[in-house]
Amino acid sequence: MTYRAPINDMLLALNHGAGLQAAVKAGHYGDFDADITTAVLEEAGKFATDVLAPLNRVGDEHGIKLEAGKVTTAPGWPDAYRRWAAAGWNAVSGPEAFGGQGLPLAINAACTEIWSASNIAFGLCPLLTLSAIEALDAHGSDALKKTYLEKLVSGEWTGTMQLTEPQAGSDVGALRSRAEREADGSYRIKGTKIFITYGDHDMTDNIVHFVLARLPDAPAGTKGISLFLIPKFLVNADGSLGGRNDIYPSGVEHKLGMHASPTCTMTMGDHGGAIGYLIGEENKGMQCMFTMMNQARLGVGLEGVGIADRAYQQALAFAQERRQGHAVGKTGDGSDPIIVHPDVKRMLMQMRALTAAARTICYATAVALDVSIRAKDPKVRADAAARGALLTPIAKAFSTDIGNEVAYLGVQIHGGMGFIEETGAAQHYRDARITPIYEGTNGIQAIDLVMRKLAANGGAAVWALLDELSAIVKQVEASNDPAFGTTGAKLRDALSSLDRASRWLSERVTSAPNDALAGATPYLQLFGSALGGCWLAGEALAARTSGEAGDPQRYITLARFFAENISVQAASLEKTVTDSAEAVNGADAVLLG
Amino acid sequence: MTYRAPINDMLLALNHGAGLQAAVKAGHYGDFDADITTAVLEEAGKFATDVLAPLNRVGDEHGIKLEAGKVTTAPGWPDAYRRWAAAGWNAVSGPEAFGGQGLPLAINAACTEIWSASNIAFGLCPLLTLSAIEALDAHGSDALKKTYLEKLVSGEWTGTMQLTEPQAGSDVGALRSRAEREADGSYRIKGTKIFITYGDHDMTDNIVHFVLARLPDAPAGTKGISLFLIPKFLVNADGSLGGRNDIYPSGVEHKLGMHASPTCTMTMGDHGGAIGYLIGEENKGMQCMFTMMNQARLGVGLEGVGIADRAYQQALAFAQERRQGHAVGKTGDGSDPIIVHPDVKRMLMQMRALTAAARTICYATAVALDVSIRAKDPKVRADAAARGALLTPIAKAFSTDIGNEVAYLGVQIHGGMGFIEETGAAQHYRDARITPIYEGTNGIQAIDLVMRKLAANGGAAVWALLDELSAIVKQVEASNDPAFGTTGAKLRDALSSLDRASRWLSERVTSAPNDALAGATPYLQLFGSALGGCWLAGEALAARTSGEAGDPQRYITLARFFAENISVQAASLEKTVTDSAEAVNGADAVLLG
Repeated sequence: MTYRAPINDMLLALNHGAGLQAAVKAGHYGDFDADITTAVLEEAGKFATDVLAPLNRVGDEHGIKLEAGKVTTAPGWPDAYRRWAAAGWNAVSGPEAFGGQGLPLAINAACTEIWSASNIAFGLCPLLTLSAIEALDAHGSDALKKTYLEKLVSGEWTGTMQLTEPQAGSDVGALRSRAEREADGSYRIKGTKIFITYGDHDMTDNIVHFVLARLPDAPAGTKGISLFLIPKFLVNADGSLGGRNDIYPSGVEHKLGMHASPTCTMTMGDHGGAIGYLIGEENKGMQCMFTMMNQARLGVGLEGVGIADRAYQQALAFAQERRQGHAVGKTGDGSDPIIVHPDVKRMLMQMRALTAAARTICYATAVALDVSIRAKDPKVRADAAARGALLTPIAKAFSTDIGNEVAYLGVQIHGGMGFIEETGAAQHYRDARITPIYEGTNGIQAIDLVMRKLAANGGAAVWALLDELSAIVKQVEASNDPAFGTTGAKLRDALSSLDRASRWLSERVTSAPNDALAGATPYLQLFGSALGGCWLAGEALAARTSGEAGDPQRYITLARFFAENISVQAASLEKTVTDSAEAVNGADAVLLG
Repeated sequence: MTYRAPINDMLLALNHGAGLQAAVKAGHYGDFDADITTAVLEEAGKFATDVLAPLNRVGDEHGIKLEAGKVTTAPGWPDAYRRWAAAGWNAVSGPEAFGGQGLPLAINAACTEIWSASNIAFGLCPLLTLSAIEALDAHGSDALKKTYLEKLVSGEWTGTMQLTEPQAGSDVGALRSRAEREADGSYRIKGTKIFITYGDHDMTDNIVHFVLARLPDAPAGTKGISLFLIPKFLVNADGSLGGRNDIYPSGVEHKLGMHASPTCTMTMGDHGGAIGYLIGEENKGMQCMFTMMNQARLGVGLEGVGIADRAYQQALAFAQERRQGHAVGKTGDGSDPIIVHPDVKRMLMQMRALTAAARTICYATAVALDVSIRAKDPKVRADAAARGALLTPIAKAFSTDIGNEVAYLGVQIHGGMGFIEETGAAQHYRDARITPIYEGTNGIQAIDLVMRKLAANGGAAVWALLDELSAIVKQVEASNDPAFGTTGAKLRDALSSLDRASRWLSERVTSAPNDALAGATPYLQLFGSALGGCWLAGEALAARTSGEAGDPQRYITLARFFAENISVQAASLEKTVTDSAEAVNGADAVLLG
């Protein structure tokens, strides 16, 4: 089963749900020509279908190999990567000064969904490169930029992000890798990093590692961390490659999924230490990391959207082919495709509705990040930055949660065949499982949402968003379209729950932090269920008004399904947020009793 | 990480939540001596910890091999199986006339949980044998019983159940395997079966296959199916093994999980056809299958409970060892075990609460099945049979749904380590995934619940159960124990939702079946969330009154957590049942548009 990018759905989400069209009209995108969006997505979809999707299963079956200090990727992968980079896909939103196309993050977000859907383990590599570009562009010296940025932007070289050590996962401040100052201004780094995605591979001539380490005189914790650029091969003054640097893959993980993506243990210091160059200031490495965290987290959210859509497309095709039983009231010979059964329809609708909502949430996050950089008016930029910061943990956690739920349902629709690896549904299920974990676990996203994003500015970003969502609900109700069923009422209730839960938590962030923390995960789920429902309803209204996406009935029914099946959970989640903190914080009696 | 059977929790669930103690007191268990329960469970737990748990990972890594028509299991497995059978574990609830111990199904249910928790792929083999025993005992001729039943009961031979063919999965009536009558009263069977669990292996000298096939003159569909006993090796009159029968494993599946359990394609007819013996009457095979379906489905539900408890125990141990960050308000050096973080506590409580509820639901199903067979009063037996029939689809689907949710959370608590196969959390996650699929998908369970079990007798079994659950809620409220928090209110609301949703669906089973079918899955979830909450509250009350299980606080807090986090979803699920049928049944506009 291949993958085809759902261009119409993506355009509707991008232009309407996520607000790209309105932002362009308002002038926040400068001279960006929105007409090219369709062409870009269609070309990306074509490359994904033709080149990347066929390699997805090959990569899962072959995995990668580490031999003699070198990682080899699966057959066809190096060639596909080089074609992908040569076609300019790595440079979509890269800085124009260094060869990038300077397109909006929102366009690249849609492309990222496409790469992830067609081949999530492949698409992960450039996600890391993008983070590296962002860090270098924002904080690197001119000399470092001159040497490295263009090749990272083009994708001729890839980047890695090296934070984790065995004792330092979510708790980055606990890392121990050591950096010593050298007389020439460079540094020598020694230490071991684990879980390094694409830490080594054979797809490019060089790899640029971005490594967090600690200077000998650094303060403890996150305030004593510095960021270093460490090339796999040193780069000569003329740009040619020099000697091999002392950073080697010393192990690769045997993982549940993402078999084609090498997850390396990286060792620095077996040959005197890796030569590294400081990015930004000494002991300010965490700040450098924070600046790029929004985009990296959004990228993982888009992986969730992508894997969900892939699982959905495969399940939909199976449900139209596989014949078992009869539709109610039908008799006679021959059985019907299982898509006639209401329970199968329900699963497919759940998959599609969750995917569509997560897509819009991710795209909206990208639009907010775009506007926060591109708009002329500082107030518009600041509001957009606050919106982007608020949406990022939801984009990451909601999308990866539903990526797993959708892949689970994808297996279920296949019945017994879903448990057989050859079918492919199980691969999506395995691959998806890392996304709620890396780039900040979803629990950490929920904590970020409550303790920092909701708490910021007296909740201003939340109240502003609630006002916008209420306006959508009013439009749904004003439409008087019976096809919306109980959508308006369900969304209104969901927004009320979100409002009350937000106020309850706001009051406790400082005064009763353990109560606020206990409610973080259900609050994020509540937020996603209300937000997704309103935005899908907004898209349905836009489809109705604009006629852009063909018959609007499908978008109205989809929005209705979401409201009546998912947004409707908001009331229960609100009660969980406000009533269950005592049971959570009294858990020791149960767990340790 | 090993596994230890949670004997106290199991006894509380069995005796109180599931009602074993009351049923024994009422005389429904005849001369069964309930005092032996603890000793049986402790011995089973010991065997599981010492012998089966250590082989769980070995089995996953080695898997099985099919070479030259023979399946070989993983190292240590044949020996473990023989020790397990020799210790009498296969015969716990087997018929005494054929060497069984005749203990209640409820005791064997608890043992089944233990085998599944310690090694789910191992425990699956005897589950199939139990089904075979049940079919043969209920429907076989005396001659067949004499030859086969004792060795199946002891576990010296194992059994298989062979229904599925490529075109006949959930739609069993579509099967095509052919049986021809022979002059000596036996039959010759030809055909191919797929997904046959333990279809071949090296743990016993013989395997007794139970195969559905169709006679040449049989009517179409399920009314033309007959059940045959087909031994791997024919059995001579003196009980010794004779020639190899024409039923061979021709392929094994490459699966997501359960690697140690061979899933075979079985071919009959390459050498003239397999010799088989009719069980029951010709064309009445489906009825034979139905009689054993309750127990088989309950067995799979117990697999869900077992894998959930295993995943929980592993995650709990990890959360007490792994140190990252600090508890709120704590400063100074050294980080805390992650169990101090409220979000981690929430996940562990969710895992434990779901597991405990599923356990009680499964045990209660077993008690109902016991009483339906053992009670003297025909009215008591009939009511218990209706209760058992009602609970079976919930026991199967709710327990296997939560088995997957709990295993998912188990991976999540491990963070990045959860995605690494060596940790073991991922194996539970993979192994669990088949349980919502086989023995009737969970969608089919939900349909069975609504269309047959709720519809039976005007819903009498549901209303009777609701009355009992209401009585528990009254006791919670009457206790005035503030430790219950909002438990009483939450459970009362959940029961109201269950009552209304049940009435809404009852009214539509005949008049609007597609609306009833569209609500089946959320209704089953609603049922489980209300039922589990009430029974956990009942157990907490019993722990408070009896003092049997030590400090009752842990059970009260656990019940409270369930009510405030899971039962609270009932209101949302009710709305989904009653309001979303139109969107589900209008799905074609979305899915096929």
